[in-house]
Parts: sequence; structure tokens; C-alpha cells
Amino acid sequence: MKPFGVITLTTDFGIVDPYVAMMKGVILTINPDVKIIDISHQIRVGSIYQGAAYIKETFTYFPKGTVHVCVVDPRVGSERRMLGVEADGHFFIGPDNGIFWPVIKEFESAEIFSLDNRDYFLPSVSHTFHGREIFAPVAAQISKGQALENMGKKIDDPVVLELPQPYVEGEFLYGQIVRIDNFGNLISNIGSKDMEGFLGGSVPFVEAGKLKIENLNRIYDEVDEGKPMILINSSDKLEIAVNLGRAFEYLGLDRRDILGAVIKVGRIG
Amino acid sequence: MKPFGVITLTTDFGIVDPYVAMMKGVILTINPDVKIIDISHQIRVGSIYQGAAYIKETFTYFPKGTVHVCVVDPRVGSERRMLGVEADGHFFIGPDNGIFWPVIKEFESAEIFSLDNRDYFLPSVSHTFHGREIFAPVAAQISKGQALENMGKKIDDPVVLELPQPYVEGEFLYGQIVRIDNFGNLISNIGSKDMEGFLGGSVPFVEAGKLKIENLNRIYDEVDEGKPMILINSSDKLEIAVNLGRAFEYLGLDRRDILGAVIKVGRIG
Amino acid sequence: MKPFGVITLTTDFGIVDPYVAMMKGVILTINPDVKIIDISHQIRVGSIYQGAAYIKETFTYFPKGTVHVCVVDPRVGSERRMLGVEADGHFFIGPDNGIFWPVIKEFESAEIFSLDNRDYFLPSVSHTFHGREIFAPVAAQISKGQALENMGKKIDDPVVLELPQPYVEGEFLYGQIVRIDNFGNLISNIGSKDMEGFLGGSVPFVEAGKLKIENLNRIYDEVDEGKPMILINSSDKLEIAVNLGRAFEYLGLDRRDILGAVIKVGRIG
Repeated sequence: MKPFGVITLTTDFGIVDPYVAMMKGVILTINPDVKIIDISHQIRVGSIYQGAAYIKETFTYFPKGTVHVCVVDPRVGSERRMLGVEADGHFFIGPDNGIFWPVIKEFESAEIFSLDNRDYFLPSVSHTFHGREIFAPVAAQISKGQALENMGKKIDDPVVLELPQPYVEGEFLYGQIVRIDNFGNLISNIGSKDMEGFLGGSVPFVEAGKLKIENLNRIYDEVDEGKPMILINSSDKLEIAVNLGRAFEYLGLDRRDILGAVIKVGRIG
Repeated sequence: MKPFGVITLTTDFGIVDPYVAMMKGVILTINPDVKIIDISHQIRVGSIYQGAAYIKETFTYFPKGTVHVCVVDPRVGSERRMLGVEADGHFFIGPDNGIFWPVIKEFESAEIFSLDNRDYFLPSVSHTFHGREIFAPVAAQISKGQALENMGKKIDDPVVLELPQPYVEGEFLYGQIVRIDNFGNLISNIGSKDMEGFLGGSVPFVEAGKLKIENLNRIYDEVDEGKPMILINSSDKLEIAVNLGRAFEYLGLDRRDILGAVIKVGRIG
Repeated sequence: MKPFGVITLTTDFGIVDPYVAMMKGVILTINPDVKIIDISHQIRVGSIYQGAAYIKETFTYFPKGTVHVCVVDPRVGSERRMLGVEADGHFFIGPDNGIFWPVIKEFESAEIFSLDNRDYFLPSVSHTFHGREIFAPVAAQISKGQALENMGKKIDDPVVLELPQPYVEGEFLYGQIVRIDNFGNLISNIGSKDMEGFLGGSVPFVEAGKLKIENLNRIYDEVDEGKPMILINSSDKLEIAVNLGRAFEYLGLDRRDILGAVIKVGRIG
């Protein structure tokens, strides 16, 4: 796959510290022509799960040949491996901690390399910031056309990350809330295909915390202002929303308890 | 107007979720050479008014031919129209909810199109994320030189957004606070021309909440540290500030009550 | 030094207001080809000290010829001078308030110019936003190859900023905490050379607030989850961290009191 000239960054570095900018400086020193796009630097600190979900959900909107750098790396400096992955025409650079597992799992033809070749690292490598000294320069080299093959040996045993999956038990489909977005929408891990398979042609009801909602809507504007509803969102997931309001206030759950809260789907009639 | 090669983004998507990055990926897939600049993604959720004020205040600092995408779109997916506007040599892409009205109102020669031509949308359009599937690809096409004329029919009845205007009543000029900025400055909707017209050559006093300030200063440093003052700011608006301090703490109003709080201007002597 | 085509921005403007975008629009109008990279816009309002530390720590990761614009400028509009500095092959543009002093101090060959030539400013200069009307256009001109010499007269008396320095008193090395990063790590002003000089071959202990830690670790993962430790971080400074946790919660100090809190280093045995 020919590189496209874009590098994306996904980290848990936040937006106050200068760490992200240091990575960008390193990248531009090696490839002055590349465009750098932030996906998010607000992954919860150390949340490999959230980082994995973000990159899986987002990479596909970028052109083939994009290099995606993901640094959620709580074990930085330890003996954990570092990966370069090529999958679905995209490149992925980051720690071997499961963050790329959802992508690797979906694309059987994914090729995975352990980044061992120090020729592509910065000359001086600290023990606590491999994003700057390893992942950034490796990504920049790949964006210039350097082959992953030259950067380390091929492996077939990347760390596996078991994401919580929806499941059917008795008469119900169970999932959980995996994200609260900026609009206060509650996004579940239940996909449209899970819903279709479970519902057949039936009308659903959803229970989450104290909330119970019937019917599946198509757009927010179909219910009155301030009323809760469920729909399949733009990422193809079941979502609880409130038209012109914030769904998480409806749940009767403490905000800290919402992530991972159970969603139960049933069939009416 | 020839496109310049820059697209700006103004949304209420926040800076945690991957939604903005998805839009950027879509844009770069269509036009790999365009530069994308964030104006703000922290518009208050659903605040068409704030989005309209931001874009009106900011666009003019960009080169002619820039494409400005504004997605504050609480009724996404409903029958509301979507607009492409050319005004003052700039392009504006977003929902028809009044967000571009201040620009359209100022420039009589503005041309307004309803974005109906699905040829320029992503092939699959969700009901809840038109920023990604319609506004981003349309903006990218315009940044490549595609004409607005080809994207839909011309209209002359865009949604009107009535912004609060300052007014004179009796011996006083009344306005309101429309923004608190990062410095704690309180920015009003009273322009320098409103002030000049009202004051003639008189010295003003300003009342806001419990605060009363006399004189109009030129720079923050003209009053002692921690002292309140008023000046005409860099956006040509009357502003209440505190030198090396935060003006909103002076107001004797709850922070939630500050937006929209009345400012009363009088003449001394 | 030939410009490289990159401008960095460091400000205390925050990430809500449109001020940073206005600067970017001005820059791109003058130099459409330049890349603009944000270092941080979350410098504490008016903290020249923090701005100075950020730029000193970060600029070196960018290519030679980069132009660094730093706008932490609480006395904007007053008679304070404005500087263009060339040091170590980089350009620095901002107010003369000490923000560039750490760079100037380190590089004796630094050349310093007072930005007086209004030909390079925007035609209309407000009293409260020199970032937009002076620093942005000057930086853009420099990024296009315009010489600093043409922009003002050379000076040799820039404002000096005395940063707190670590010192040895009796049997102890004293420093202070100067940053809490996104991971909750507490970063001190004690450099690796200070430590080496003080320790010789001894093993250190560190006291900060109620916390006492022995030994110097190399990576976070060397201590158990949730345990505190000290190491020399990626910026070559002594840092207090908690493996997979947040160090500042360990300190027994109120969060507001942490910046500037004393760190005391001793020798064991």
C-alpha cells in the first residue's frame, strides 16, 4: 500500500501538555510534507479499550494509505512489544497491548510487525515517551514510503483485547453503554445487525437504569423536545438520546456508573 | 470566486469524540491538498446563536475563497434544508437554521443555494451525522473548484436569526453580554459605532449587575491590577475587563446568569 | 537561517474562543503554504513562566527554521516591546516579557530584534490583540523568508525571567514542582545533571508533602500498580509518578498548592 500523506494521532496525552506537539515536531522533521490530523487526545488515561474503539470507528473515514498512530501505553518502557500493522490498506503504529486488536480481528489479511529496528527510532530513546521517540519517527518514515517489513519481524501473536460483546439470554438482548458523547448521547455496543437479528420484525423496547423506552426512531427530531428515544446512530450502534437534551441525565445512574451500564432490549408483543 | 485551499470547521462536537476527525478524513479523501483549520468545536451544544456569532466574527480573517463549514445542527435529519452560501468572496456550508443569517444580512450580494444534489454527498447518508456525510464532502468539492450552482437550486428565503440588538431608551443605551472569553472578559453586543452615536463627545459610565464603571479605556494596562474597566475590544465591541483579573467575578451575578445579562450605558455630566 | 515552512503557536487563549483561528487565518492569508502546529493554548492565563517553560522544552523537537509564536501577553497594548529572536536556528516571535529568556540565556549567539517596523503589521492594529495584528503577520512573513533584520532594530537588553532553580543547602537538594501533567505526574525543576552532581553514586530519597520515596526508578512499570516512584522523565527532569495512578493524589497537598511545592532530595546511607 502506497502511503497517502496523512498521519492521524490518537492518545491519552490531553490537550494541555506539550507532548503531542513534540510528536508533531518529530514527524515534520522527518517528513515535512505530511498532514497530521488529531483524532482525539482525550482518551481516558490508560484506557486501551477506549483507544481501540476510537481507532476502529474512525480510521475507515480516512484515505487508504493513512498512517494511524495510537499511543495509549500505560506500560511504556516495559518489555511490551511495539507494533506496525497494515490492514485494509491502512497503517497502524503503537504499543502491542490490544489497541489494534479490533482492526486485526476484522481484517484477516492484516500483516503485523514487531518494531525492533532501532534505525528508525530517534537516536536517544527515553523510557517514558516512546510516542515521541519511536512511534512518531516510525510513522513518519512509513508516510514517506519506507516499508514495514524493514522495521521488524513479522509476528502472528499480537495481544488480544476482548471487548464486551452483546449477547442474547432468554427473551432479551443485552449490551452495555460504551460511550457518552458531547451531546450527552449514550452509545452502546449493540450494532444494527445485532438488533435486526434479535428483533426480526418486532418493535423493540429498551431498559437502561430507570429508563424504559419503546420503539426505534430514525432521527432525534421525531420525538418532542426533552423526550428520550433510541435510534441506530451514525456509527451503526444502538444509542439512547434525548431530543435537544442530554440523555445521561435521564438514566437515574451516577455519571461515573454510566460507562458499562447494562442495556436490555426486549420485543414488544 | 476561486477556492483558496482552506476549509474551516465550527461545530458543537466538542474535543473528545472522534466526530470532527471523521469529517476531516472525508474531506482529505476528496481533496488531499486542502488545509483544514478548526475555528472552534466548543460551541455550546445546539447554540445556533453562538455558532452564528463565531463565524461572523472570524471568517473575515481568512483569505477570500475559504470554505467555512458550520455544524450546529440540532434538527439534523429532519426536513430542514441545507445551505451553501457565497458571500464576500467566502463560501459557507451548513444547515439552514439561521447560522449564516448575520453574514447573509450584511452582504446583499450573497448567493444562497439549497444543497439538494446527492451526487456530492457520501454514498451512504445517516440520519444523524450530516456533517460527515453531506457538509464535509460538499465543502471538499467546493475547495476543489466545484461550483455551488451545481449542488442545488438558488433560494432567497433562508431562515432568519434575530440576534439581540442594542437599543437606546430614554437617556440610556442598553445591550447585553454575549460572551465570556478565556480571560474572563465580558463581551457585549454593543459596537463601537453604537457607542460613538450614543455618546457624542460625552464620557460614558456602564452598569452591569452590581458593577458601575466610569470612563472608556484603551488598553487593559491603563488601570491598576485587579481593577475593572471598559474598552472597545479587538472585535470592535464594548467589553468589561479587569486588568490581570477575571471580570466575571466582579459582576455579582451567578456565572450561569451572565450570558444575556443587561449592560446599561449612560453619559456622565 | 532559512525558514522551514512551519509555524508553532503557544498561547493562553484557551480552546473555546475563536482567537487562535483568527491568527491562523491571518497567517494563511500571508503564507498559504505554511503548516501551523499548536503547541498549547492552555497556558494558564498570564503565566509567562509556564509559557516560557513550554516553549523551551518543546521547540527543539521541531525542524530548524521553524517560527515559534508565543502569546502570553498580559500587558498587551502597553509600552512593552515586542521581540523577534533567532536562536539555535529557530525563530521566536512574541512580547518582550521574559517568555523567551530561557532560550536566549542558553544560546549565546541568539540575535534579538525589537519589532518596530509597522510595514509588517496588519494595517489596523487594535490595542488588545497583538497576536492577530502583529505577531501572526510577522511570523508569516518570516516563514516566507523575510529577514528579522528588516523588522526592527537589534537589541541586547531583553526582559529577564528568573525561573526558580534547584539548589543545595546542607545535606539536601531542593527543587519545586513546576507542572502536573495529564497523567497526574508531578514534574520538578530538578534536572538529571542536578541529581547526578548531588548524588554521586548514592541512592536518593525524595520528600514532597507527606510523601517519602526511596530509590530512583527507570520506568513506571518497575513498581506495583498504584505505588509511587521517582524517575528522570522524558524531558530530563525529576518526576514523581504513580504507576497506573495519579501522583498528585498522593501528595497530601491541596491541588492548588501543588505548583511550587517544595521537593527535597536526600542521600540514603
